[in-house]
Amino acid sequence: MDPQWINELIEEIGTDGVTINETALLQHSQDESHHPGVSPDVVASPKNTEQVATILRTASRYGIPVTPYGAGSGLDGGAIPLHNGISLDFTRMDRILHFSPEDMSVTVQPGITRLALNKQINSHGLHFPIDPGADASIGGMTATNASGTTAVRYGSMRDQVLDLEVVLADGRVIHTGSRAKKSSSGYHLNGLFTGSEGTLGIITGITLKLHGTPEHLIAARCTFPSPKACAEAAHLILMSGIPVQRIELVDSESIRQVNAYGQYAFPEEHSLFFEFAGTKGGVEEEASLAEELMKDAGCSHWERAAGSKERSEIWRARHELSYAFSHIPGKKMLGSDVCVPLSHLADLVVHARTLIEGSGLLGGVFGHVGDGNFHTSIVYDPKKPHEREKALHINEELVLKALQSGGTCTGEHGVGIGKKKYQVQEHGEAAAVMASFKHLLDPEGILNPGKIFD
Amino acid sequence: MDPQWINELIEEIGTDGVTINETALLQHSQDESHHPGVSPDVVASPKNTEQVATILRTASRYGIPVTPYGAGSGLDGGAIPLHNGISLDFTRMDRILHFSPEDMSVTVQPGITRLALNKQINSHGLHFPIDPGADASIGGMTATNASGTTAVRYGSMRDQVLDLEVVLADGRVIHTGSRAKKSSSGYHLNGLFTGSEGTLGIITGITLKLHGTPEHLIAARCTFPSPKACAEAAHLILMSGIPVQRIELVDSESIRQVNAYGQYAFPEEHSLFFEFAGTKGGVEEEASLAEELMKDAGCSHWERAAGSKERSEIWRARHELSYAFSHIPGKKMLGSDVCVPLSHLADLVVHARTLIEGSGLLGGVFGHVGDGNFHTSIVYDPKKPHEREKALHINEELVLKALQSGGTCTGEHGVGIGKKKYQVQEHGEAAAVMASFKHLLDPEGILNPGKIFD
Repeated sequence: MDPQWINELIEEIGTDGVTINETALLQHSQDESHHPGVSPDVVASPKNTEQVATILRTASRYGIPVTPYGAGSGLDGGAIPLHNGISLDFTRMDRILHFSPEDMSVTVQPGITRLALNKQINSHGLHFPIDPGADASIGGMTATNASGTTAVRYGSMRDQVLDLEVVLADGRVIHTGSRAKKSSSGYHLNGLFTGSEGTLGIITGITLKLHGTPEHLIAARCTFPSPKACAEAAHLILMSGIPVQRIELVDSESIRQVNAYGQYAFPEEHSLFFEFAGTKGGVEEEASLAEELMKDAGCSHWERAAGSKERSEIWRARHELSYAFSHIPGKKMLGSDVCVPLSHLADLVVHARTLIEGSGLLGGVFGHVGDGNFHTSIVYDPKKPHEREKALHINEELVLKALQSGGTCTGEHGVGIGKKKYQVQEHGEAAAVMASFKHLLDPEGILNPGKIFD
Repeated sequence: MDPQWINELIEEIGTDGVTINETALLQHSQDESHHPGVSPDVVASPKNTEQVATILRTASRYGIPVTPYGAGSGLDGGAIPLHNGISLDFTRMDRILHFSPEDMSVTVQPGITRLALNKQINSHGLHFPIDPGADASIGGMTATNASGTTAVRYGSMRDQVLDLEVVLADGRVIHTGSRAKKSSSGYHLNGLFTGSEGTLGIITGITLKLHGTPEHLIAARCTFPSPKACAEAAHLILMSGIPVQRIELVDSESIRQVNAYGQYAFPEEHSLFFEFAGTKGGVEEEASLAEELMKDAGCSHWERAAGSKERSEIWRARHELSYAFSHIPGKKMLGSDVCVPLSHLADLVVHARTLIEGSGLLGGVFGHVGDGNFHTSIVYDPKKPHEREKALHINEELVLKALQSGGTCTGEHGVGIGKKKYQVQEHGEAAAVMASFKHLLDPEGILNPGKIFD
């Protein structure tokens, strides 16, 4: 016999919108992170904003936790329903609501993924550039302030959001911005709700900036004797003012893994991957200047992708990196995600490599060095608890060193479950202000409870 | 006899930090806007963050309003102390606290102006690009989320702020961000306090992103038969993906005024001003592509600035526009500042011209067309109240039409006094959320009372 609130949910949004099917519950109990799964009591799949508001009003009345769920590609447990309740699945809210090429903007529902979005707009000479690797949902990317390989050029989701439609805990629907490209009106709720991981309200609509598709792209790669040399070389490029579109560090261990996983033949050395984008002549010049700078800095194997096939291969390989580590049979992978001021990057990367080697575990270091953001992927045997402990310890060491360096405990994955314990250390007295906003907007604590703040 | 709270202030921060001198009070009663001045009871000039905290604690205890004051260059009354009290002047907090060229960031006190900042960092190959025209203080620019001619490339202040030090109403000091270039940790207080005009807390430190100085710059200008044709041509450039650094609309009336004011000889027609920035070859190519595109669109007088002298002249003239209108002897000037989705820009500009011509007043239309943000400068005789009424009416008509178009009542000047009445209309239910944040952080209402929300 279902509890009364589930019956009410079914009455309100229909039997096709609510399920307690075991497989569905299991699927919504986890994401791509290492955190143990927790099943929701039900999965609710609203069709529109009104249904989300209805669900939230019912949840408020009964004090039932609501955890939003997009593509399940999150890396720190943001979508895991720690206190059961309702998993709010956005699969049925995956449409483009308003596409305005002439405004260079688009309004979408949260369930659409970034690849599905791009597929529908690319033929208009426009693209949405934020690229976290996974084909994440735009709602999830907004909720975690995702970014990825193009952040050095386009920033993170927060830089792309013009307006959000948000349903508050009490069912009120607000808009946080407008369709204008900039504004000095009111307080900046766009930025506050972006990255709030469903703890302040549920995002039901997202208006995004779009960008002209660059006329010409050049990808290139080169190698250096050490990760530190890679980080220092990346720093030279940034200081030079060459407007790179991507600049990625991939250490030799990561190259080895991805070569094996995807049957690539990249030189198995510490590497930088580059992309330049713009007009043909401009991009040619940028790539040549970068080549000169990198050769002066002592790089080997400078190689430009010969055509679009080779270019795609570089970025496919880069995106498969995480999978290359996480899909080793019988093993699990634990990732980290710190971001530091650029001048501290080389030190942090060296520290990460030292920690991994000291642990005896297999692991790679790679990341978005143009932002000072990098990841480790550490492989452990789930049957050996001390290996997981070691991996967690490395994660913690990196976070603490990042905070000491004036950086942040998460550059793009979000706080979720794993970074909650560092919030006060990172934000100090500001954490109390943040928590007071949470209490103001969600007094009953039904919105994704257990995330960001307790 | 001074009231007790003034004596306490003097005790706390010294006689040199507190004045009731009539001239100082008068100077702090106004900004560059058309709003009538209101004098503070005292001007307090703290030397450091601790003194700001002391002042706020005293103000809280006695319920005295505190209105921050930077360079006095605001355009909508943000720094006018509507309820007297303390004008918090940042002249003595104008230092660079930490300059880190290798991190491409700088931490400054709020009183430093943007030109003073650039003067100290330019020799390191770095610059701070946000350029609202006036030599505003960085604190004021942050408080209003200022932007200006380079927003099409660099966004607004909010896009440049890495961290703020903020003193809350009760004297607590918080940091809203970190020195990392991006973060997904906590809630985004950076963006919330940027643009909050001193109503949520007093900004005492600002950490900003810096950018490599472009190797090469090209400025150019051309004319079109109508402001509408200018706006449409600007739209073509944006859609083409040519990465302009500035793209400005200046109508013929504005050109006439600035020619007269600054003894320039620009063709007195509706114009677009351009700047391209990057590597030499890239910029050459961009400028040539833009020229081709503009000629296809029917422009006349395409002219590249021959050298750096001519280039500076274009931007000096653009910056003097507002002064050209506001310094007509015996007259006053009233400016507007709306921002709309790009596709609505041409219509709004035409509407603005029609309203000005219908009013019989002298006025110009110009603005940052790459962002959909434009201004009108309307000249009126302060001795003729019906002229000021007409100017106010035009301002109101433009705001209402901008809101109908999905835009905002202020693109960059801030809410201040003049845009307060549009907050509910623009933000709807979200205005209630914003007001609840204000009440939470400033329960006594001592922080810049009468601004943004009552």
